[in-house]
Amino acid sequence: MNSFERRLAEQASHCEQVLEEILSASPQPGERARPARLLAAMRHAALGGGKRLRPILVVESAALFGVSAAASMLAGAAFELLHCYSLVHDDLPAMDDDDLRRGKPTVHKAFDEATAILAGDALQTLAFDVLSREATHDDPAVRASLVRCLARASGIGGMAGGQMLDLEAEGRFSTNNTPVALDIGEIETLQRMKTGALLAACCEAGAILGRAPETEKTAIMRYARAIGFAFQLADDILDVEGDAAAVGKAVGKDAAKNKGTLVAAIGVPAARKRLDQLIDEAKDALAPFGARAQWLIACAEFIAARKS
Amino acid sequence: MNSFERRLAEQASHCEQVLEEILSASPQPGERARPARLLAAMRHAALGGGKRLRPILVVESAALFGVSAAASMLAGAAFELLHCYSLVHDDLPAMDDDDLRRGKPTVHKAFDEATAILAGDALQTLAFDVLSREATHDDPAVRASLVRCLARASGIGGMAGGQMLDLEAEGRFSTNNTPVALDIGEIETLQRMKTGALLAACCEAGAILGRAPETEKTAIMRYARAIGFAFQLADDILDVEGDAAAVGKAVGKDAAKNKGTLVAAIGVPAARKRLDQLIDEAKDALAPFGARAQWLIACAEFIAARKS
Repeated sequence: MNSFERRLAEQASHCEQVLEEILSASPQPGERARPARLLAAMRHAALGGGKRLRPILVVESAALFGVSAAASMLAGAAFELLHCYSLVHDDLPAMDDDDLRRGKPTVHKAFDEATAILAGDALQTLAFDVLSREATHDDPAVRASLVRCLARASGIGGMAGGQMLDLEAEGRFSTNNTPVALDIGEIETLQRMKTGALLAACCEAGAILGRAPETEKTAIMRYARAIGFAFQLADDILDVEGDAAAVGKAVGKDAAKNKGTLVAAIGVPAARKRLDQLIDEAKDALAPFGARAQWLIACAEFIAARKS
Repeated sequence: MNSFERRLAEQASHCEQVLEEILSASPQPGERARPARLLAAMRHAALGGGKRLRPILVVESAALFGVSAAASMLAGAAFELLHCYSLVHDDLPAMDDDDLRRGKPTVHKAFDEATAILAGDALQTLAFDVLSREATHDDPAVRASLVRCLARASGIGGMAGGQMLDLEAEGRFSTNNTPVALDIGEIETLQRMKTGALLAACCEAGAILGRAPETEKTAIMRYARAIGFAFQLADDILDVEGDAAAVGKAVGKDAAKNKGTLVAAIGVPAARKRLDQLIDEAKDALAPFGARAQWLIACAEFIAARKS
């Protein structure tokens, strides 16, 4: 394990601890009780797995502006909760109908559909709850900005909208279920919304936590957009070339569903080339930060090279 | 139409206008696009119906502290969006499986299940988005408090938790689907979480917007808890005695599902008596405000007497 891998593992473990506290059985002030079945489903969805890439991006971006992980991980955990909610709902029978996630049964398999819907709903709510807490940041202006940043990236204009476009591309709502042929621009919009927006928002959240000056915020947002799209490209390449056991979920599903991925449109070699270009762009965006940006650059390389 | 009914109608229409703007086709800064099908489903869920009781409670509570409706309705609309998301998800086949809502087909009937799940998800996100906007309040501390208030009332410790308890009470997860007999205390907890928490939070939001002093906030929270529970009691009485056409959704469903309602446990006459006590308590809580509280008191009476 090299120093970057060690750092990733430490941060993932730190995130797990913070999520464990957030998802404890103790009601917060203003909560009447935490029903056991719902809490268990939320814990199943959020604990014990995942690369924790989103909180790591929050923490590493905040670190660029001198914010410690101790001071940024709560916000990072909120972004992870939002991501976990989206996985629970995307896996539902009415959506992508997946049985396996992070090598475990999906929430509706381990519990049931109604519980999975509620668990996803409550994980989303909890994400915003966490961002509103004084422990997340003592300046309420920062907290309110974080809420807006997360909401814009994950609602109709971001992640949820991207999932809608994805279902439409599959031909789910056409009269004969025929997949819709998207052009490359449409595929890019879909994927930037579905996955890229939330990843980019993680970096923006780091800049908000670090009260970054506008020019530096612009630079990190350019990095963020590049790695957000790179992540999805790498995911799609994995779906074609990956091994289900390593990936921890079913592979080959995109082709089976005629999913509108860039890999399907331009092929693996061209997609790899595009991926390399995006990583170069991400590095270029961070050039003004010099050596301070080493961990974020390592994150970009990690995203491009990941095998699961 | 008396002056209170006229005021209710004006505020409902004001709320509709604000929701119409929030749910316009124009993407907000940070949003890439608003996919048409998802927007249509969200508009189906949120526009053109409903008593708008929650935003009215926000606005009337804020008015008690001198805040104009023009300055509080955006926050009110956020609480309504959260409520609308909960209706969309509660109506899903895996949950209460309802075909009719506010006299219209439910979202999964008018569209489909996947779209309904996403529309509910994105309505929730939009509620928090709206609360984070500067237009909602110029003080970020107020915005952050509103986010926390809404999140605590609607997550695992409030509304979503209450829906979980309700499904459990129906016997949904017992081996033979046998309804679970709840005692009166358990029924009260369930109902205070499922419906009461969000209604109470609306009044708390008004106090937050009005920067109410602590003693006045305590008084309005006492009012809020009483009417929150009164609303659910009135709803359960309507389910037994109401007329489907007037109510705008199926009635008699609680008995059919052996729902753990207080009406089922203690009968209609005792429930009506409890309802009267709660309204008396609500009025008593507002006594220190004198005539300023007349509209909130009218709201309490409206909740107790409503026929739909």
